[in-house]
Amino acid sequence: MKQVYRLTTFALLSLFTATTVHSDEGMYPISEIARLNLSKKGLQLTALELFNPNETCLIDGICRVNGCTGSFVSPEGLIITNHHCAYRAIQSASTTKNDYLKNGFQAKTKATEIPAAGYTVRVTEAFSDVSTEVLSVAKADMSFVDRSKAISRKRKLIEKRAEENNPGMRAEVAEMFTGKTYVLFLYTYIKDVRLVFAPPSSIGNFGGDVDNWEWPRHTGDFSFMRAYVAPDGSTADYSPDNVPYQPKRFIQVAPQGANEGDYVMLLGYPGRTARHKTSSFLAFEQDVRLPYIVDLYGRQINTMEKAGEQDRAVALTLLSRIKSLANTEKRSRGQLKGLTRKQIVEKRAAEEQKLQAYIDADPVRKATYGKLLSNIDSVYQKMSETAAAEANFQNLRSTSQLLRLAFTIYDAAHERKKPDLERESAYMDRNFSQTVSRLMMIQKDLNLDVDQSLLAQLLERMKNDAMEVPALDGLELDDLYSETQLKDPKFLQSCLNQTIEQLNANSDPFIQLIVKLYPQYLELRESSKARDGQLGLCYGELITLKQQFLETDFVPDANGTLRLTFGTVRGYSPEDAVYKSPATTLSGVVAKTTGVAPFITPDKVLNMAEKRDFGPYMHPELKDIPIAILYDTDTTGGNSGSPILNGKGQLVGVNFDRAFEATINDFAWNTEYSRSIGVDIRYVLWITDTVYGAKHLIREMGLN
Amino acid sequence: MKQVYRLTTFALLSLFTATTVHSDEGMYPISEIARLNLSKKGLQLTALELFNPNETCLIDGICRVNGCTGSFVSPEGLIITNHHCAYRAIQSASTTKNDYLKNGFQAKTKATEIPAAGYTVRVTEAFSDVSTEVLSVAKADMSFVDRSKAISRKRKLIEKRAEENNPGMRAEVAEMFTGKTYVLFLYTYIKDVRLVFAPPSSIGNFGGDVDNWEWPRHTGDFSFMRAYVAPDGSTADYSPDNVPYQPKRFIQVAPQGANEGDYVMLLGYPGRTARHKTSSFLAFEQDVRLPYIVDLYGRQINTMEKAGEQDRAVALTLLSRIKSLANTEKRSRGQLKGLTRKQIVEKRAAEEQKLQAYIDADPVRKATYGKLLSNIDSVYQKMSETAAAEANFQNLRSTSQLLRLAFTIYDAAHERKKPDLERESAYMDRNFSQTVSRLMMIQKDLNLDVDQSLLAQLLERMKNDAMEVPALDGLELDDLYSETQLKDPKFLQSCLNQTIEQLNANSDPFIQLIVKLYPQYLELRESSKARDGQLGLCYGELITLKQQFLETDFVPDANGTLRLTFGTVRGYSPEDAVYKSPATTLSGVVAKTTGVAPFITPDKVLNMAEKRDFGPYMHPELKDIPIAILYDTDTTGGNSGSPILNGKGQLVGVNFDRAFEATINDFAWNTEYSRSIGVDIRYVLWITDTVYGAKHLIREMGLN
Repeated sequence: MKQVYRLTTFALLSLFTATTVHSDEGMYPISEIARLNLSKKGLQLTALELFNPNETCLIDGICRVNGCTGSFVSPEGLIITNHHCAYRAIQSASTTKNDYLKNGFQAKTKATEIPAAGYTVRVTEAFSDVSTEVLSVAKADMSFVDRSKAISRKRKLIEKRAEENNPGMRAEVAEMFTGKTYVLFLYTYIKDVRLVFAPPSSIGNFGGDVDNWEWPRHTGDFSFMRAYVAPDGSTADYSPDNVPYQPKRFIQVAPQGANEGDYVMLLGYPGRTARHKTSSFLAFEQDVRLPYIVDLYGRQINTMEKAGEQDRAVALTLLSRIKSLANTEKRSRGQLKGLTRKQIVEKRAAEEQKLQAYIDADPVRKATYGKLLSNIDSVYQKMSETAAAEANFQNLRSTSQLLRLAFTIYDAAHERKKPDLERESAYMDRNFSQTVSRLMMIQKDLNLDVDQSLLAQLLERMKNDAMEVPALDGLELDDLYSETQLKDPKFLQSCLNQTIEQLNANSDPFIQLIVKLYPQYLELRESSKARDGQLGLCYGELITLKQQFLETDFVPDANGTLRLTFGTVRGYSPEDAVYKSPATTLSGVVAKTTGVAPFITPDKVLNMAEKRDFGPYMHPELKDIPIAILYDTDTTGGNSGSPILNGKGQLVGVNFDRAFEATINDFAWNTEYSRSIGVDIRYVLWITDTVYGAKHLIREMGLN
Repeated sequence: MKQVYRLTTFALLSLFTATTVHSDEGMYPISEIARLNLSKKGLQLTALELFNPNETCLIDGICRVNGCTGSFVSPEGLIITNHHCAYRAIQSASTTKNDYLKNGFQAKTKATEIPAAGYTVRVTEAFSDVSTEVLSVAKADMSFVDRSKAISRKRKLIEKRAEENNPGMRAEVAEMFTGKTYVLFLYTYIKDVRLVFAPPSSIGNFGGDVDNWEWPRHTGDFSFMRAYVAPDGSTADYSPDNVPYQPKRFIQVAPQGANEGDYVMLLGYPGRTARHKTSSFLAFEQDVRLPYIVDLYGRQINTMEKAGEQDRAVALTLLSRIKSLANTEKRSRGQLKGLTRKQIVEKRAAEEQKLQAYIDADPVRKATYGKLLSNIDSVYQKMSETAAAEANFQNLRSTSQLLRLAFTIYDAAHERKKPDLERESAYMDRNFSQTVSRLMMIQKDLNLDVDQSLLAQLLERMKNDAMEVPALDGLELDDLYSETQLKDPKFLQSCLNQTIEQLNANSDPFIQLIVKLYPQYLELRESSKARDGQLGLCYGELITLKQQFLETDFVPDANGTLRLTFGTVRGYSPEDAVYKSPATTLSGVVAKTTGVAPFITPDKVLNMAEKRDFGPYMHPELKDIPIAILYDTDTTGGNSGSPILNGKGQLVGVNFDRAFEATINDFAWNTEYSRSIGVDIRYVLWITDTVYGAKHLIREMGLN
């Protein structure tokens, strides 16, 4: 991090106290790094070389790529991330004629790199605790819904102010501990991102959904992208005149990789965990939300896969969505299995019993907190009662993309009348262009037949719901789909310019459907805010209380902000009589290859494997190309693409997944089974260099 | 084996020459044991103590229990076999009130042991090569169908003669090498078998179909039965006056079990393997038969499971059939996966290419055998063309149990008019009472709704078949099922007494349906015999040729006759980066227990596990109860219930399954992945003794 970006008002505090360090649990905020004593673990850099708020440091080489993480691996903005992180861009660029998903993509020169519409890159530049300012707006006599809105408005205000003070940058106030701690992050924000190199899906997605969330793994889940900025270095939308972004720091690639027992650390932007939530939250997940997801998504995936089987052009509009749903569906299955098998709910409930006994033991505590846990429980209890019907209703607009377009159009017209800070975040001036460009991408991939099938299925499902949705009475889907013009980009654009009144008079049947549905969506939005307000208040108190009770501090749940996690390359025993070692090999790829998807391997790879044409990338002991490695760091979604770094801070692999048992990382981490999976840098380099001959990238990374 | 049973005319030959012994492949006929030099492997008995044609030996303690294997473990005919082998008997004895499947069963005294209707026990007494006599009837100018019939008739004649010479015994001429070698086996034959002890299914079938064919395993798949004979020692149907059978030898139980690295051997009655079949046979399995089975059975299981979910009484009539289909369905899936992944077809085809080159290299060989392989190929090729339609047609009568009853009734009337030796085997005098008792058992479990659903599904499937089945035109299932009287035992009996003419005039709609279908069944039976005749001739020549070419001899494919296999308790690596060790533990049972079927464990077991109440059965190093062990012997279906014996010939476990990769044992054995699974004797004894307190059985086995 360079001083030029540093806000002078930012306090360089350590914002959280780390939990006891002998446990490997923890996605540590970077402010904690100095306290972790990592040299004892295997770090060969000083803590300040890793993170220094005043100087360029290793962390400056890490970026966020949409919901994933990436590393700059050259002075010219070359980014390595996962194949699955670039998947949407590869799909978008693919046609049945130039099928980059199938055949892979390689830009021989910068001029032929393909713009990745909808992609952005962020680099964390500075942060500062704004908890006091945020919480100053919460008053004791506020209703829950008012509390929620007041906090939300204050967060937006701080963000807006920060962006005004730092033109071109992006600001975000992240909630660290629910209802308790808020941190303002400032990001360099790059909007011109391009696709540089992607292996074929048969490598980058080898094993597909069958192997997803599983170890052992044989997937070359990596790709290269590049960040571009305007010639003057400022952030800019795509333009052929843009130039490669020059990161303050890039990560040195270490072609020797990492082996069993080696220290590794990951930097990245993990999305969401729920380690500080109550057993009643976990029970809601286990009994209600996860089974619902598994069932709904399972059916939707099935429908889309069938539609794509017949026609590659159709498949190319659906694959990214299928992949995303399948990922969530299988993770949810893993979480369900893990929650049950490891009795996570029961264990957390037992902890809460102890906490309740501690509360009850002191009259003052009892008076203040006596009902805290039961109040939280009652929120989830109430949610459970209406959850299925509400989920179906909410999923209407994620299921039908046409409904999603219509909803966003109508919601935008409604929200953009309000003062900027009062709006839903997506419609604020600072966010609206992104929202619109997302709509355009959705429209590009519209498939009316599939859309109608999915919507019909969901409506069928809703027939049993207790919740009345009058707007759906007598709905004729055939008419709806034959009459709508939302598939026309010009019509979509024109709708985006209409006022509420114009939209109310708009004859498009999807717009009309949303007009009727909208009041019910607003109602649910309000009740959801009230719930958030109540839970925020309760969870804030709960964490304070737990700190007193356990006489320790905690690491905040993952929330999409930059974190460090560290550990060791090691195997594990997922169950009685089974041991999984931490490295897979090219021989394993060959053994898994059946020629039937998702276990197809390009002939080129098979031939080179047979000839043992390993270039300089052979593992000296295994005498084979290492494919993937396993390690016990603490990761979750958003850590996709995170660099796996050795003790010198060099890149030895790219993180892309977790083992099946570790799907419950989101709820509980455990040294026995929490394992993350990355592609070994030697496989990355062998594929890029030896197999596909992208020597220019090897050179650009400073390797010979 | 005792001399009194030995036929003086039997030659005590070694009938087959063993393949090279350093490979562990091989289900060796007991005649081969002397040649195996097992003492080098770990056998502490002499070969004659194991098998001695003139004296009582270890082999006299082994029996066949229906399609499974059992061991006598007391002087009073107590047999240990698998829970899944006794499953049909446990189901039969169960009612919703006394649900022995659910709760387990224990006879505190012999008087309360429950007759296992339909169960028989056999003990191998003697054998003799009858190849020359059998093949003497095959003439060069015979048609294939005549050849097939002549050989079949001759085999029956030899069996009948042997049984006449040895009253009360059972004779069987087994085909060892297809079309080449035939051996007459004589068996003591016991028809009164009773259920003594069975753990609850939650132990005996723990893991159910999810864990079936998988390692690691935590299933207590054992049960105790007892063989009874008439007071004079002769074989007899069930009578309360019968007395326990006294085996010539019983197997001593070794409560110390076996551990990793220990020598083990199994004796048993493996059913069918196809190691000497051609690549065209394997391709037929891979491309046609196995996918068909997986699809058909998958749907049928689904239908039956749904029917059973609502009503335990219904479930109790279906569970055994579901279990059997599910077992075959999952095995078939494993085989499909294995055939593809291990490229078994391709490897065998490559061997055949070498053999063909060897044939072609010599003009005389070329003249004799030049078209041998292509002739075999053409049989399977022709089979493939009509396979799906024929399979559907044949499956009509395994799918609808009513159709099965009607078919057997009509077929019996037809066949029993013929001279005994000309009949299909099931209707010969020596077999017919068994056939009838099987019909009665089928009738007992009839469920008309399920039967009709399954039949309707199959008829729907047949709509696309090219084969015309005029008898099915305009069939009204509702009428069929409402009007049939076959569910009435008296009506069934009366039908069994009717002549062809009477049956032709019988108004029962299922009888009438069979009258119309029957000619087509006869036609397929003839064409199948012609095929068998041709394949028999070809395979006989092929094995002779392969012996010349490879200058070695082979072990015959499994065929339900007594075999020995030996090996070591050892783990394996099923795939890159995975190692499975060869012992599971009670802690593993607890970890797998979710409380949701099939992972339920009785509270009693969980409580004793928690209290570490292990009785004398704790593993000294693991400090836990060992549950199941894994070893590299060569087994297949029919080895269920086989004793796992240590070097002293003592019982250390009971074999019950194979690992998923070893489902392809049937086609190819491999030291890398062919592993069999048995329940550890220490778990058997802990459950029987410590958990369920059946001390009388422990004493009866001579343990304290």
